[in-house]
Amino acid sequence: MSGVFLVKHWLKDSSPLVRDTFSAVPLLSNPKASEKGVRYFEKDLNRCFTLGHPIVSYSPDDPYEVMRAKEINRMFGPRGSANAYDMMLDLHNTTSNMGVCLIASGVQNAVEMHACHYIQVITLGFPCRLFVLFPDPLQKRTIQSLVSWSRCGFELGPQPQGVVRADILQKMKTLVEVTLDFVNYLNKGMEFPAFETDIYQYAGEVDFPRSSDGEISAVIHPSLQDKDFSLLCPGDLLFLSLDGKSIPYSGEKPLHPVFINEAAYYEKKIAFILAEKIQVSVPALRRQTH
Amino acid sequence: MSGVFLVKHWLKDSSPLVRDTFSAVPLLSNPKASEKGVRYFEKDLNRCFTLGHPIVSYSPDDPYEVMRAKEINRMFGPRGSANAYDMMLDLHNTTSNMGVCLIASGVQNAVEMHACHYIQVITLGFPCRLFVLFPDPLQKRTIQSLVSWSRCGFELGPQPQGVVRADILQKMKTLVEVTLDFVNYLNKGMEFPAFETDIYQYAGEVDFPRSSDGEISAVIHPSLQDKDFSLLCPGDLLFLSLDGKSIPYSGEKPLHPVFINEAAYYEKKIAFILAEKIQVSVPALRRQTH
Repeated sequence: MSGVFLVKHWLKDSSPLVRDTFSAVPLLSNPKASEKGVRYFEKDLNRCFTLGHPIVSYSPDDPYEVMRAKEINRMFGPRGSANAYDMMLDLHNTTSNMGVCLIASGVQNAVEMHACHYIQVITLGFPCRLFVLFPDPLQKRTIQSLVSWSRCGFELGPQPQGVVRADILQKMKTLVEVTLDFVNYLNKGMEFPAFETDIYQYAGEVDFPRSSDGEISAVIHPSLQDKDFSLLCPGDLLFLSLDGKSIPYSGEKPLHPVFINEAAYYEKKIAFILAEKIQVSVPALRRQTH
Repeated sequence: MSGVFLVKHWLKDSSPLVRDTFSAVPLLSNPKASEKGVRYFEKDLNRCFTLGHPIVSYSPDDPYEVMRAKEINRMFGPRGSANAYDMMLDLHNTTSNMGVCLIASGVQNAVEMHACHYIQVITLGFPCRLFVLFPDPLQKRTIQSLVSWSRCGFELGPQPQGVVRADILQKMKTLVEVTLDFVNYLNKGMEFPAFETDIYQYAGEVDFPRSSDGEISAVIHPSLQDKDFSLLCPGDLLFLSLDGKSIPYSGEKPLHPVFINEAAYYEKKIAFILAEKIQVSVPALRRQTH
């Protein structure tokens, strides 16, 4: 609820979103779900956007969130049009112990990468890890989350759904303010130097063990719970069944688990996501003013 | 989800619920909500039971959870009838940092009080605090939660809705097993000696500060968050607004806050519940066998 709380605040007073060169527009992406205190009403809104297939049609029979995705596309797009907004900030929370995690769609998007790096440098009070969904631009994968625009995703946790925690709220507010500052400096022609950084790159996902009827038969092992971004080595314990049986990691190489025990992923058959830590080089960035 | 996970397990294999003198019956109280991974479908099931007004009518227009409450009453009651089950164990989770909390309806129910005390004595591995809803039997208050029968409520946290944590799951399993042992010993004629104990007694509830449109204007203060069962003194900080304003506790006497920042209570306009710590004397218990 951190993002919902912040956006409701900004809808009353948007002055914190104003900078010299632009203003950001606050949007409550899923008002019906916010009102009910749930993640979504009919369909996960963060699975209603696709990159490959622009959404143009509009049907009253669509699930609420599909209609809402189309509305958002009309309001801030249409995607690919000259009038489309340049950047979008997603405010997310997770039940996983992710701390403050920045999510970029790919390392080739220089604005995203520099925005994330700027946040990491400025917000020294807390670490910000960077998770990259699709480091390979050639990867032909349908992107269903809201990554159609240049954007920064903020994923803060642990926080239960339906709850606002003051510590997480304050960090999220800082992330947005710092990112708007970054865009403002970029607009003004500031040059951001090249840098090297470690990113966590999506490398796969692992479902819970399930019995023949599809029900979960073992839960996240206590030794893995809350260990997001730690190093998971072959043989480390992943799951624990009620009768005390432990199931180890049988992967071939050490990886970093993230989004461990995220509530919204149960239905998506994801117990945790695996990430590889890699170093990337990002060239300098300076906006070409015309 | 701890209770849901345990009950689904016991529905496949109920042998852990069998004792010499009786068997317990597992029930998934709200299958529709469990399937969707939400607390409830149309109406909070834990507000669908009333003590003063036995539920007898049955209408297809009822919200799903009201129909379900009536079904539960038919299955295990009807309330007050000779065939009614004697005891019920409620398995609950909370997003609050409640640890392991036992909930009894009132100190006058000797079976409930002895069951809780037995649990406290046996489960030395973790503290079990006892929260009593209605210590005064004359208190004419409509009880809407599932306290119509003799029962023990188990409230374990912190755990987000929609998530199973192995540590909390294991404790909940232990609580049920120990309570069934207690009932078995009681059935066999064992005498449980009188005791004195500290209980936390319901003393009121506090809503979030709200603006004129009803929206929450300040969140739980970081110095209160996760401090369930601690002592709250006049002047201690309760809430923090986005612009940094703190709101202190203006009550007259020190009390103990519980269910701080519980997700399900936002809609019920409860930021936390206040409890008074009192010592009670409970007489010896021995079942009269006929």
